[in-house]
Amino acid sequence: MPSWVDGVPTDSLSLTDRGLAYGDGVFETIAVKSSRPLLLERHLQRLAAGCSRLSIAADQALIHNELLSFAAQLGDGVMKLIVTRGDSLRGYAPSPQAQPRRILQGSPAPAYPETHGEQGVKLFACATRLSQQPSLAGLKHLNRLEQVLARSEWQDSTYAEGLMRDTSGRVIEGVYSNLFLVKDGVLLTADLSRCGVAGVMRAELLAQAQALGAATEVRDLQMADLEHADEVFLCNSVYGIWPVNGFAQLNWSVGPLTRKLQDIARALLDV
Amino acid sequence: MPSWVDGVPTDSLSLTDRGLAYGDGVFETIAVKSSRPLLLERHLQRLAAGCSRLSIAADQALIHNELLSFAAQLGDGVMKLIVTRGDSLRGYAPSPQAQPRRILQGSPAPAYPETHGEQGVKLFACATRLSQQPSLAGLKHLNRLEQVLARSEWQDSTYAEGLMRDTSGRVIEGVYSNLFLVKDGVLLTADLSRCGVAGVMRAELLAQAQALGAATEVRDLQMADLEHADEVFLCNSVYGIWPVNGFAQLNWSVGPLTRKLQDIARALLDV
Repeated sequence: MPSWVDGVPTDSLSLTDRGLAYGDGVFETIAVKSSRPLLLERHLQRLAAGCSRLSIAADQALIHNELLSFAAQLGDGVMKLIVTRGDSLRGYAPSPQAQPRRILQGSPAPAYPETHGEQGVKLFACATRLSQQPSLAGLKHLNRLEQVLARSEWQDSTYAEGLMRDTSGRVIEGVYSNLFLVKDGVLLTADLSRCGVAGVMRAELLAQAQALGAATEVRDLQMADLEHADEVFLCNSVYGIWPVNGFAQLNWSVGPLTRKLQDIARALLDV
Repeated sequence: MPSWVDGVPTDSLSLTDRGLAYGDGVFETIAVKSSRPLLLERHLQRLAAGCSRLSIAADQALIHNELLSFAAQLGDGVMKLIVTRGDSLRGYAPSPQAQPRRILQGSPAPAYPETHGEQGVKLFACATRLSQQPSLAGLKHLNRLEQVLARSEWQDSTYAEGLMRDTSGRVIEGVYSNLFLVKDGVLLTADLSRCGVAGVMRAELLAQAQALGAATEVRDLQMADLEHADEVFLCNSVYGIWPVNGFAQLNWSVGPLTRKLQDIARALLDV
Protein backbone atom coordinates (compact mmCIF):
# COMPACT_ATOMS: atom_id res chain seq x y z
CA MET A 1 0.00 0.00 0.00
CA PRO A 2 1.38 3.44 -0.88
CA SER A 3 2.34 6.11 1.63
CA TRP A 4 3.65 9.60 0.96
CA VAL A 5 5.08 12.39 3.07
CA ASP A 6 4.88 15.82 1.44
CA GLY A 7 4.21 14.17 -1.89
CA VAL A 8 7.19 11.81 -1.75
CA PRO A 9 6.76 8.03 -1.39
CA THR A 10 8.18 6.92 1.98
CA ASP A 11 7.18 4.91 5.00
CA SER A 12 8.94 7.05 7.58
CA LEU A 13 8.56 10.42 9.25
CA SER A 14 10.89 12.98 10.82
CA LEU A 15 11.22 12.28 14.56
CA THR A 16 10.76 15.97 15.31
CA ASP A 17 7.26 16.16 13.80
CA ARG A 18 4.77 17.79 16.17
CA GLY A 19 2.16 15.21 15.19
CA LEU A 20 4.16 12.70 17.21
CA ALA A 21 5.23 15.07 19.99
CA TYR A 22 1.84 16.62 20.76
CA GLY A 23 -0.76 15.21 18.38
CA ASP A 24 -0.53 18.66 16.81
CA GLY A 25 -2.51 18.07 13.65
CA VAL A 26 -5.72 16.85 12.04
CA PHE A 27 -6.68 13.91 9.84
CA GLU A 28 -9.22 12.68 7.32
CA THR A 29 -10.07 9.10 6.43
CA ILE A 30 -11.36 8.99 2.89
CA ALA A 31 -12.92 6.08 1.01
CA VAL A 32 -11.52 5.61 -2.49
CA LYS A 33 -13.37 3.71 -5.21
CA SER A 34 -12.03 3.27 -8.76
CA SER A 35 -9.35 5.89 -8.04
CA ARG A 36 -11.95 8.44 -6.94
CA PRO A 37 -11.96 9.94 -3.41
CA LEU A 38 -15.54 9.88 -2.12
CA LEU A 39 -17.22 12.81 -0.38
CA LEU A 40 -14.07 14.73 -1.24
CA GLU A 41 -15.54 18.23 -1.05
CA ARG A 42 -16.82 17.61 2.47
CA HIS A 43 -13.49 16.14 3.57
CA LEU A 44 -11.66 19.14 2.16
CA GLN A 45 -14.08 21.52 3.87
CA ARG A 46 -13.61 19.88 7.24
CA LEU A 47 -9.85 19.73 6.80
CA ALA A 48 -9.66 23.43 5.97
CA ALA A 49 -11.87 24.28 8.94
CA GLY A 50 -9.73 22.15 11.28
CA CYS A 51 -6.47 23.68 10.03
CA SER A 52 -7.97 27.12 10.42
CA ARG A 53 -9.13 26.51 14.00
CA LEU A 54 -5.67 25.19 14.93
CA SER A 55 -3.88 27.91 12.90
CA ILE A 56 -2.07 25.34 10.75
CA ALA A 57 -1.35 27.16 7.49
CA ALA A 58 -1.48 24.15 5.17
CA ASP A 59 -1.78 24.68 1.40
CA GLN A 60 -5.30 23.41 0.74
CA ALA A 61 -5.04 23.49 -3.06
CA LEU A 62 -1.86 21.42 -2.93
CA ILE A 63 -3.57 18.93 -0.61
CA HIS A 64 -6.53 18.68 -2.96
CA ASN A 65 -4.25 17.81 -5.88
CA GLU A 66 -2.27 15.37 -3.79
CA LEU A 67 -5.42 13.55 -2.69
CA LEU A 68 -6.45 13.10 -6.32
CA SER A 69 -3.02 11.77 -7.31
CA PHE A 70 -2.84 9.44 -4.33
CA ALA A 71 -6.35 8.10 -4.96
CA ALA A 72 -5.41 7.44 -8.59
CA GLN A 73 -2.49 5.34 -7.40
CA LEU A 74 -4.48 3.59 -4.65
CA GLY A 75 -7.37 2.56 -6.89
CA ASP A 76 -9.66 1.09 -4.23
CA GLY A 77 -9.41 1.27 -0.45
CA VAL A 78 -9.08 3.95 2.19
CA MET A 79 -6.65 6.83 2.22
CA LYS A 80 -5.78 8.54 5.44
CA LEU A 81 -4.48 12.09 5.29
CA ILE A 82 -2.71 13.58 8.30
CA VAL A 83 -1.73 17.25 8.31
CA THR A 84 0.60 18.24 11.14
CA ARG A 85 2.09 21.59 12.12
CA GLY A 86 5.46 20.21 10.98
CA ASP A 87 8.75 20.02 12.82
CA SER A 88 9.79 21.96 15.83
CA LEU A 89 12.33 22.10 18.56
CA ARG A 90 11.42 21.08 22.08
CA GLY A 91 8.54 23.11 23.56
CA TYR A 92 4.89 23.77 22.85
CA ALA A 93 5.47 27.03 20.97
CA PRO A 94 5.76 26.27 17.24
CA SER A 95 8.90 27.37 15.41
CA PRO A 96 8.04 30.37 13.24
CA GLN A 97 9.62 28.53 10.30
CA ALA A 98 7.61 25.31 10.84
CA GLN A 99 6.11 24.04 7.57
CA PRO A 100 2.89 22.03 7.82
CA ARG A 101 3.46 18.41 6.78
CA ARG A 102 1.17 16.23 4.66
CA ILE A 103 1.11 12.49 5.30
CA LEU A 104 -0.88 10.07 3.15
CA GLN A 105 -1.36 6.41 3.89
CA GLY A 106 -3.30 3.87 1.86
CA SER A 107 -5.00 0.78 3.20
CA PRO A 108 -7.38 -1.84 1.81
CA ALA A 109 -11.11 -1.23 2.17
CA PRO A 110 -12.13 -2.70 5.53
CA ALA A 111 -14.01 -6.02 5.28
CA TYR A 112 -17.03 -5.41 7.52
CA PRO A 113 -19.69 -8.16 7.59
CA GLU A 114 -22.63 -7.53 5.23
CA THR A 115 -24.96 -8.13 8.16
CA HIS A 116 -23.81 -4.88 9.82
CA GLY A 117 -25.69 -2.93 7.18
CA GLU A 118 -28.53 -5.40 6.66
CA GLN A 119 -29.59 -6.42 10.16
CA GLY A 120 -27.75 -3.79 12.15
CA VAL A 121 -25.20 -3.91 14.95
CA LYS A 122 -25.07 -4.02 18.72
CA LEU A 123 -23.57 -1.06 20.57
CA PHE A 124 -21.23 -1.59 23.50
CA ALA A 125 -21.68 0.80 26.45
CA CYS A 126 -18.26 2.43 26.85
CA ALA A 127 -17.31 3.51 30.36
CA THR A 128 -14.76 5.98 28.97
CA ARG A 129 -16.39 9.38 28.71
CA LEU A 130 -15.61 12.21 26.32
CA SER A 131 -14.18 15.26 28.08
CA GLN A 132 -15.63 18.66 27.23
CA GLN A 133 -13.30 21.04 25.40
CA PRO A 134 -15.07 23.58 23.20
CA SER A 135 -11.72 24.70 21.73
CA LEU A 136 -11.23 21.28 20.12
CA ALA A 137 -14.81 20.01 19.80
CA GLY A 138 -15.88 18.83 16.36
CA LEU A 139 -12.31 18.63 15.05
CA LYS A 140 -10.84 15.40 13.74
CA HIS A 141 -7.54 16.12 15.49
CA LEU A 142 -4.76 13.73 16.44
CA ASN A 143 -5.46 13.69 20.21
CA ARG A 144 -7.43 10.45 20.25
CA LEU A 145 -6.52 8.71 23.50
CA GLU A 146 -10.15 8.75 24.63
CA GLN A 147 -11.09 6.71 21.56
CA VAL A 148 -8.16 4.34 22.15
CA LEU A 149 -9.28 3.77 25.74
CA ALA A 150 -12.93 3.34 24.74
CA ARG A 151 -12.13 0.90 21.93
CA SER A 152 -10.00 -1.19 24.29
CA GLU A 153 -13.01 -1.78 26.55
CA TRP A 154 -14.46 -4.60 24.44
CA GLN A 155 -12.99 -7.49 22.44
CA ASP A 156 -16.27 -9.38 21.96
CA SER A 157 -17.12 -9.18 18.25
CA THR A 158 -20.82 -9.16 19.20
CA TYR A 159 -20.30 -5.40 19.39
CA ALA A 160 -19.38 -3.58 16.18
CA GLU A 161 -19.18 -0.20 17.86
CA GLY A 162 -19.31 1.47 21.27
CA LEU A 163 -21.45 4.31 22.52
CA MET A 164 -19.56 7.26 23.97
CA ARG A 165 -21.20 9.73 26.33
CA ASP A 166 -19.65 12.94 27.60
CA THR A 167 -18.54 13.52 31.18
CA SER A 168 -22.01 14.97 31.91
CA GLY A 169 -23.73 11.82 30.62
CA ARG A 170 -24.98 13.17 27.30
CA VAL A 171 -25.14 10.74 24.38
CA ILE A 172 -22.56 11.88 21.80
CA GLU A 173 -21.30 9.36 19.23
CA GLY A 174 -19.65 6.03 18.49
CA VAL A 175 -15.90 5.49 18.88
CA TYR A 176 -15.39 5.86 15.10
CA SER A 177 -18.89 6.82 13.94
CA ASN A 178 -21.54 9.46 14.49
CA LEU A 179 -24.89 8.49 15.95
CA PHE A 180 -28.37 9.40 14.73
CA LEU A 181 -31.76 8.82 16.34
CA VAL A 182 -35.19 9.07 14.74
CA LYS A 183 -38.10 10.09 16.95
CA ASP A 184 -41.58 10.83 15.59
CA GLY A 185 -40.10 11.29 12.12
CA VAL A 186 -37.44 13.79 13.24
CA LEU A 187 -33.79 12.95 12.57
CA LEU A 188 -31.71 13.78 15.66
CA THR A 189 -27.97 13.91 16.22
CA ALA A 190 -25.84 15.26 19.04
CA ASP A 191 -24.67 18.84 19.25
CA LEU A 192 -20.87 18.67 19.01
CA SER A 193 -19.91 22.04 20.43
CA ARG A 194 -18.33 20.56 23.59
CA CYS A 195 -16.86 17.29 22.30
CA GLY A 196 -17.11 14.76 19.50
CA VAL A 197 -15.99 14.59 15.89
CA ALA A 198 -18.18 16.31 13.31
CA GLY A 199 -18.20 13.55 10.72
CA VAL A 200 -18.35 14.10 7.00
CA MET A 201 -21.10 11.50 6.55
CA ARG A 202 -23.02 13.09 9.44
CA ALA A 203 -22.97 16.45 7.62
CA GLU A 204 -23.94 14.80 4.34
CA LEU A 205 -26.85 12.88 5.90
CA LEU A 206 -28.21 15.98 7.61
CA ALA A 207 -28.22 17.74 4.24
CA GLN A 208 -29.73 14.73 2.43
CA ALA A 209 -32.47 14.32 5.04
CA GLN A 210 -33.39 17.99 4.69
CA ALA A 211 -33.49 17.56 0.92
CA LEU A 212 -35.92 14.66 1.45
CA GLY A 213 -38.12 16.98 3.49
CA ALA A 214 -37.35 15.26 6.81
CA ALA A 215 -37.09 17.42 9.91
CA THR A 216 -33.62 17.40 11.47
CA GLU A 217 -32.46 18.56 14.86
CA VAL A 218 -28.93 18.95 16.22
CA ARG A 219 -29.15 19.21 19.98
CA ASP A 220 -28.04 17.74 23.29
CA LEU A 221 -29.15 14.12 23.53
CA GLN A 222 -29.76 12.41 26.84
CA MET A 223 -30.01 8.69 27.57
CA ALA A 224 -33.80 9.11 27.61
CA ASP A 225 -33.67 10.24 23.98
CA LEU A 226 -31.86 7.04 23.07
CA GLU A 227 -34.24 4.90 25.14
CA HIS A 228 -37.30 6.38 23.44
CA ALA A 229 -35.91 6.53 19.90
CA ASP A 230 -37.90 4.85 17.10
CA GLU A 231 -34.78 4.23 15.00
CA VAL A 232 -31.08 4.37 15.81
CA PHE A 233 -28.17 4.25 13.40
CA LEU A 234 -24.45 4.91 13.11
CA CYS A 235 -22.60 6.39 10.17
CA ASN A 236 -19.18 7.22 8.87
CA SER A 237 -17.68 8.06 5.51
CA VAL A 238 -16.16 4.61 4.98
CA TYR A 239 -18.96 2.15 5.78
CA GLY A 240 -21.99 4.41 5.26
CA ILE A 241 -24.82 3.51 7.64
CA TRP A 242 -25.18 0.68 10.14
CA PRO A 243 -28.57 0.44 11.86
CA VAL A 244 -28.27 -0.15 15.61
CA ASN A 245 -30.41 -3.09 16.71
CA GLY A 246 -29.33 -3.34 20.33
CA PHE A 247 -27.81 -1.44 23.21
CA ALA A 248 -27.86 -2.82 26.76
CA GLN A 249 -31.50 -3.88 27.36
CA LEU A 250 -32.81 -1.87 24.42
CA ASN A 251 -33.70 -3.28 21.00
CA TRP A 252 -34.73 -1.65 17.75
CA SER A 253 -35.76 -2.92 14.35
CA VAL A 254 -34.41 -1.19 11.29
CA GLY A 255 -36.71 1.75 10.49
CA PRO A 256 -37.85 3.36 7.24
CA LEU A 257 -35.84 6.61 7.48
CA THR A 258 -32.71 4.59 8.30
CA ARG A 259 -33.27 2.47 5.17
CA LYS A 260 -33.92 5.50 2.99
CA LEU A 261 -30.73 7.25 4.16
CA GLN A 262 -28.81 3.99 3.91
CA ASP A 263 -29.67 3.77 0.21
CA ILE A 264 -28.41 7.33 -0.24
CA ALA A 265 -25.20 6.58 1.65
CA ARG A 266 -24.64 3.44 -0.45
CA ALA A 267 -25.06 5.43 -3.63
CA LEU A 268 -22.55 7.98 -2.37
CA LEU A 269 -19.99 5.33 -1.42
CA ASP A 270 -20.44 2.88 -4.28
CA VAL A 271 -19.70 5.51 -6.94
CA MET B 1 22.14 15.89 18.91
CA PRO B 2 21.55 12.14 19.15
CA SER B 3 18.19 10.44 18.62
CA TRP B 4 17.38 6.75 18.88
CA VAL B 5 14.40 4.59 18.07
CA ASP B 6 14.35 1.26 19.90
CA GLY B 7 17.99 1.70 20.77
CA VAL B 8 19.14 2.39 17.21
CA PRO B 9 20.42 5.83 16.11
CA THR B 10 18.00 7.35 13.58
CA ASP B 11 16.09 10.54 12.99
CA SER B 12 12.98 8.94 11.53
CA LEU B 13 9.98 6.94 12.66
CA SER B 14 7.64 4.39 11.10
CA LEU B 15 4.62 6.18 9.59
CA THR B 16 2.31 3.59 11.16
CA ASP B 17 3.30 4.43 14.74
CA ARG B 18 0.27 5.03 16.95
CA GLY B 19 2.07 7.93 18.62
CA LEU B 20 1.51 9.87 15.40
CA ALA B 21 -1.92 8.45 14.59
CA TYR B 22 -3.57 8.94 17.99
CA GLY B 23 -1.02 10.37 20.42
CA ASP B 24 -1.11 6.87 21.85
CA GLY B 25 1.83 7.06 24.23
CA VAL B 26 3.56 8.88 27.07
CA PHE B 27 6.73 10.92 27.42
CA GLU B 28 9.32 12.14 29.90
CA THR B 29 11.61 15.14 29.60
CA ILE B 30 14.74 14.50 31.63
CA ALA B 31 17.57 16.90 32.47
CA VAL B 32 21.03 15.40 31.93
CA LYS B 33 24.15 16.78 33.60
CA SER B 34 27.62 15.28 33.13
CA SER B 35 26.03 12.21 31.50
CA ARG B 36 23.72 11.62 34.47
CA PRO B 37 19.91 11.69 34.12
CA LEU B 38 18.50 13.78 36.98
CA LEU B 39 15.53 12.72 39.12
CA LEU B 40 15.72 9.46 37.21
CA GLU B 41 13.91 7.29 39.75
CA ARG B 42 10.91 9.62 39.76
CA HIS B 43 10.83 9.80 35.96
CA LEU B 44 10.93 6.01 35.76
CA GLN B 45 8.19 5.70 38.36
CA ARG B 46 5.91 8.09 36.48
CA LEU B 47 6.66 6.41 33.16
CA ALA B 48 5.81 2.99 34.55
CA ALA B 49 2.60 4.32 36.07
CA GLY B 50 1.61 5.99 32.79
CA CYS B 51 2.31 2.86 30.74
CA SER B 52 0.35 0.82 33.23
CA ARG B 53 -2.68 3.13 33.13
CA LEU B 54 -2.67 3.04 29.30
CA SER B 55 -1.90 -0.71 29.21
CA ILE B 56 1.30 -0.18 27.22
CA ALA B 57 3.48 -3.16 28.07
CA ALA B 58 6.86 -1.47 27.68
CA ASP B 59 9.98 -3.14 29.10
CA GLN B 60 10.84 -0.80 31.96
CA ALA B 61 14.24 -2.35 32.73
CA LEU B 62 15.28 -1.99 29.09
CA ILE B 63 14.15 1.63 29.12
CA HIS B 64 16.14 2.28 32.30
CA ASN B 65 19.31 0.95 30.69
CA GLU B 66 18.67 2.85 27.49
CA LEU B 67 18.20 6.13 29.37
CA LEU B 68 21.57 5.63 31.08
CA SER B 69 23.33 4.87 27.77
CA PHE B 70 21.68 7.79 25.99
CA ALA B 71 22.56 10.20 28.82
CA ALA B 72 26.17 9.01 28.68
CA GLN B 73 26.26 9.91 25.00
CA LEU B 74 24.41 13.21 25.45
CA GLY B 75 26.63 14.50 28.24
CA ASP B 76 24.69 17.67 29.06
CA GLY B 77 21.26 18.78 27.95
CA VAL B 78 17.75 17.41 27.94
CA MET B 79 16.65 13.97 26.81
CA LYS B 80 13.08 13.36 25.81
CA LEU B 81 11.78 9.82 25.97
CA ILE B 82 8.57 8.92 24.15
CA VAL B 83 7.04 5.47 24.60
CA THR B 84 4.26 4.65 22.14
CA ARG B 85 2.04 1.61 21.77
CA GLY B 86 3.92 0.86 18.55
CA ASP B 87 2.63 0.25 15.05
CA SER B 88 -0.83 -0.73 14.06
CA LEU B 89 -3.16 -0.96 11.14
CA ARG B 90 -5.93 1.56 10.71
CA GLY B 91 -8.37 1.67 13.63
CA TYR B 92 -8.32 2.47 17.33
CA ALA B 93 -8.00 -1.14 18.47
CA PRO B 94 -4.31 -1.98 18.89
CA SER B 95 -2.89 -4.92 16.95
CA PRO B 96 -2.34 -7.81 19.37
CA GLN B 97 1.23 -8.06 18.04
CA ALA B 98 2.00 -4.35 18.50
CA GLN B 99 5.35 -3.83 20.23
CA PRO B 100 5.77 -0.67 22.31
CA ARG B 101 8.31 1.68 20.76
CA ARG B 102 10.99 3.72 22.55
CA ILE B 103 12.03 7.05 21.09
CA LEU B 104 14.87 9.13 22.56
CA GLN B 105 15.76 12.63 21.46
CA GLY B 106 18.55 14.82 22.82
CA SER B 107 18.55 18.60 22.88
CA PRO B 108 20.76 21.29 24.42
CA ALA B 109 19.88 22.54 27.89
CA PRO B 110 17.42 25.42 27.42
CA ALA B 111 18.94 28.88 27.97
CA TYR B 112 16.43 30.50 30.33
CA PRO B 113 17.36 33.94 31.71
CA GLU B 114 18.96 33.84 35.19
CA THR B 115 16.42 36.42 36.31
CA HIS B 116 13.58 33.86 36.01
CA GLY B 117 14.95 32.09 39.07
CA GLU B 118 16.27 35.20 40.87
CA GLN B 119 13.49 37.77 40.56
CA GLY B 120 10.71 35.54 39.34
CA VAL B 121 8.46 35.55 36.30
CA LYS B 122 5.13 36.94 35.17
CA LEU B 123 2.31 34.54 34.42
CA PHE B 124 0.10 35.00 31.38
CA ALA B 125 -3.64 34.31 31.89
CA CYS B 126 -4.43 31.61 29.31
CA ALA B 127 -7.97 31.59 27.96
CA THR B 128 -7.59 27.93 26.92
CA ARG B 129 -8.99 25.75 29.68
CA LEU B 130 -8.02 22.22 30.61
CA SER B 131 -10.81 19.72 29.98
CA GLN B 132 -11.64 17.24 32.73
CA GLN B 133 -10.86 13.62 31.95
CA PRO B 134 -10.14 11.49 35.03
CA SER B 135 -9.03 8.56 32.82
CA LEU B 136 -6.06 10.58 31.56
CA ALA B 137 -5.50 13.07 34.39
CA GLY B 138 -1.99 13.26 35.81
CA LEU B 139 -0.45 11.38 32.86
CA LYS B 140 2.26 12.93 30.71
CA HIS B 141 0.64 11.53 27.57
CA LEU B 142 1.05 12.64 23.96
CA ASN B 143 -2.37 14.34 23.61
CA ARG B 144 -1.16 17.88 24.19
CA LEU B 145 -3.24 20.10 21.91
CA GLU B 146 -4.56 22.06 24.89
CA GLN B 147 -0.99 23.04 25.78
CA VAL B 148 -0.24 23.92 22.15
CA LEU B 149 -3.30 26.19 22.03
CA ALA B 150 -2.50 27.76 25.41
CA ARG B 151 1.15 28.41 24.51
CA SER B 152 0.10 30.06 21.24
CA GLU B 153 -1.90 32.69 23.15
CA TRP B 154 1.12 34.86 23.96
CA GLN B 155 4.29 35.87 22.12
CA ASP B 156 5.29 38.68 24.49
CA SER B 157 8.47 37.55 26.30
CA THR B 158 7.32 39.50 29.37
CA TYR B 159 5.52 36.25 30.22
CA ALA B 160 7.69 33.19 30.89
CA GLU B 161 4.72 30.92 31.49
CA GLY B 162 0.92 30.84 31.33
CA LEU B 163 -1.63 29.88 33.97
CA MET B 164 -4.07 27.16 32.98
CA ARG B 165 -7.38 26.69 34.73
CA ASP B 166 -9.79 23.83 34.17
CA THR B 167 -13.18 24.17 32.47
CA SER B 168 -14.73 24.75 35.92
CA GLY B 169 -12.34 27.62 36.64
CA ARG B 170 -10.05 25.86 39.11
CA VAL B 171 -6.39 26.88 39.13
CA ILE B 172 -4.37 23.88 37.88
CA GLU B 173 -0.87 24.47 36.50
CA GLY B 174 1.39 26.22 34.01
CA VAL B 175 1.56 25.18 30.36
CA TYR B 176 4.82 23.29 31.00
CA SER B 177 5.17 23.59 34.78
CA ASN B 178 3.33 22.77 37.96
CA LEU B 179 2.17 25.56 40.26
CA PHE B 180 2.58 25.89 44.01
CA LEU B 181 1.12 28.41 46.43
CA VAL B 182 2.17 29.13 50.01
CA LYS B 183 -0.49 30.36 52.41
CA ASP B 184 0.13 30.78 56.16
CA GLY B 185 3.16 28.50 55.89
CA VAL B 186 1.29 25.68 54.14
CA LEU B 187 2.53 24.53 50.73
CA LEU B 188 -0.43 24.07 48.37
CA THR B 189 -0.69 22.54 44.92
CA ALA B 190 -3.64 21.52 42.75
CA ASP B 191 -5.30 18.14 42.95
CA LEU B 192 -4.70 16.53 39.54
CA SER B 193 -7.37 13.85 39.54
CA ARG B 194 -9.43 15.52 36.78
CA CYS B 195 -6.72 17.10 34.60
CA GLY B 196 -3.14 18.27 34.63
CA VAL B 197 0.27 16.62 34.48
CA ALA B 198 1.65 15.22 37.74
CA GLY B 199 5.18 16.59 37.42
CA VAL B 200 8.26 14.84 38.70
CA MET B 201 9.56 18.02 40.35
CA ARG B 202 6.14 18.59 41.91
CA ALA B 203 6.31 15.14 43.55
CA GLU B 204 9.89 15.74 44.66
CA LEU B 205 9.10 19.15 46.18
CA LEU B 206 6.09 17.80 48.08
CA ALA B 207 8.35 15.14 49.58
CA GLN B 208 11.16 17.62 50.31
CA ALA B 209 8.79 20.10 51.97
CA GLN B 210 7.42 17.35 54.20
CA ALA B 211 10.99 16.37 55.09
CA LEU B 212 11.58 20.02 56.09
CA GLY B 213 8.57 19.81 58.39
CA ALA B 214 6.41 22.09 56.23
CA ALA B 215 2.69 21.32 55.99
CA THR B 216 1.58 20.40 52.46
CA GLU B 217 -1.87 20.17 50.97
CA VAL B 218 -2.96 18.81 47.59
CA ARG B 219 -6.48 20.05 46.92
CA ASP B 220 -8.70 21.98 44.53
CA LEU B 221 -7.43 25.53 44.16
CA GLN B 222 -9.70 28.41 43.24
CA MET B 223 -8.75 31.83 41.93
CA ALA B 224 -9.27 33.17 45.47
CA ASP B 225 -6.48 30.86 46.70
CA LEU B 226 -4.14 32.37 44.16
CA GLU B 227 -5.25 35.92 44.99
CA HIS B 228 -4.61 35.42 48.69
CA ALA B 229 -1.39 33.42 48.42
CA ASP B 230 1.67 34.65 50.30
CA GLU B 231 4.08 33.03 47.82
CA VAL B 232 3.60 31.61 44.35
CA PHE B 233 6.03 29.55 42.30
CA LEU B 234 6.30 27.27 39.29
CA CYS B 235 8.45 24.19 38.92
CA ASN B 236 9.53 21.53 36.48
CA SER B 237 12.28 18.97 36.29
CA VAL B 238 14.40 20.96 33.82
CA TYR B 239 14.52 24.49 35.25
CA GLY B 240 13.76 23.76 38.91
CA ILE B 241 11.79 26.61 40.52
CA TRP B 242 10.76 30.00 39.18
CA PRO B 243 9.05 32.30 41.66
CA VAL B 244 5.97 34.02 40.24
CA ASN B 245 6.10 37.79 40.81
CA GLY B 246 3.06 38.83 38.83
CA PHE B 247 -0.24 37.64 37.39
CA ALA B 248 -2.82 40.08 36.03
CA GLN B 249 -3.18 42.76 38.77
CA LEU B 250 -1.52 40.61 41.43
CA ASN B 251 2.07 40.92 42.60
CA TRP B 252 4.19 38.84 44.93
CA SER B 253 7.71 39.10 46.27
CA VAL B 254 9.82 35.97 46.46
CA GLY B 255 9.07 34.28 49.79
CA PRO B 256 11.18 32.27 52.24
CA LEU B 257 9.70 28.81 51.56
CA THR B 258 10.10 29.40 47.82
CA ARG B 259 13.79 30.24 48.34
CA LYS B 260 14.35 27.24 50.58
CA LEU B 261 12.80 24.84 48.05
CA GLN B 262 14.61 26.59 45.23
CA ASP B 263 17.94 25.81 46.88
CA ILE B 264 16.90 22.18 47.16
CA ALA B 265 15.79 22.07 43.50
CA ARG B 266 19.08 23.64 42.41
CA ALA B 267 21.04 21.05 44.34
CA LEU B 268 19.00 18.29 42.68
CA LEU B 269 19.52 19.69 39.18
CA ASP B 270 23.12 20.86 39.44
CA VAL B 271 24.39 17.41 40.43
